[in-house]
Amino acid sequence: MGDVSDARNLEDFTVGDRFETGTVAVTEQSIVAFASDHDPQIFHLDEAAAKDSFFGRLVASGWQTAGLTMRLMVDARFLGDTPLVGLGVESLAWPRPVLPGDVLTATVEILEVRPSRSNPARGAMRTKVTTVNKAGETVYQMTSTILMPRRGAQR
Amino acid sequence: MGDVSDARNLEDFTVGDRFETGTVAVTEQSIVAFASDHDPQIFHLDEAAAKDSFFGRLVASGWQTAGLTMRLMVDARFLGDTPLVGLGVESLAWPRPVLPGDVLTATVEILEVRPSRSNPARGAMRTKVTTVNKAGETVYQMTSTILMPRRGAQR
Repeated sequence: MGDVSDARNLEDFTVGDRFETGTVAVTEQSIVAFASDHDPQIFHLDEAAAKDSFFGRLVASGWQTAGLTMRLMVDARFLGDTPLVGLGVESLAWPRPVLPGDVLTATVEILEVRPSRSNPARGAMRTKVTTVNKAGETVYQMTSTILMPRRGAQR
Repeated sequence: MGDVSDARNLEDFTVGDRFETGTVAVTEQSIVAFASDHDPQIFHLDEAAAKDSFFGRLVASGWQTAGLTMRLMVDARFLGDTPLVGLGVESLAWPRPVLPGDVLTATVEILEVRPSRSNPARGAMRTKVTTVNKAGETVYQMTSTILMPRRGAQR
C-alpha cells in the first residue's frame, strides 16, 4: 500500500477553484483556554469582566480564529495527502469578533497557480481564505501563499 | 485606586521606538499539544514520524509561533494598560522553523503613528514584530496595525 497516495500537485489546481471546509464550534471554554496560553487580555478571559472592556463582551483572540481556520483547512484535505505548508501571508483581517457559541466554516479560493522559477519540483498557490459565522458574516480573511509539489517531480 | 492607570495613548509613541519582550521556551510537548488542536500534520505531531516528512523533523506550527509571539507582546505591556487590539496584518512570514528546545524573544518596532481621520478619539500604529531564536535567527516576522486611543479622548 506504500505507494497508494493522494498527494495532489500544482497541476491539479486551477485559478478560481474553491473548497469548503467543515465547521467548528467556538465555546466560552475554548476562548478562555486559548487566551490563557496566547492572548491573556480581559476581553478574552472573563465574560463578566469583559463587559467593561474594549469589546464589551467576551470575544475570541484573533489568533485563535487563525488557528481554528488552519484546523478547518487541514481537516478539509483540499491538497489530499500533500502537506499544507504556508510560505507566507500577505494579509490577515478580522472584520468581526468571534463570540462564544459561534460556529465557523471557511472557504479556500485559489487566486494564482505558479511554478517556481528556480526549482522545477516546486510551485506555489496564492489562496484567499474566508471564515464566516452561522449568519454568513466574515470573521476572518487571509490571503496567503502555500507551497506545492509539481507533478512527476522527485520528492 | 480606580483612576490610577497606565493606559498609554497614540501620543506616547514615536516612529522608531522599539520594545523588547521577554522569552518563551518551546517544548516538544507544547508543539504537539498546539498542533493537535490547530494544525494536526505529522511534522507537528510526532518526532519519529516527522523524520520522513516535508520538514525532516518535528517543527512548531507557524500559528503556534504567531500565538507565542502574541503572548510575548501582551506580557511585555508596551502599551501599559491599553489593550492590544490588532486592526489587521499586512504580512506574516516564517523564515525558519521553530524547533523543540528553542527559546524565542521578540522585538516590536513602531513604523508609523497616525491619528484616525474619522474618529478624533482613535489612532493606529503600524508595527513590525520580529521573533528570533537563541541563535538570533528570525523565525517570524509580522507587520501589523494596532488600534490606539488618543490622549484626552473620552473612552
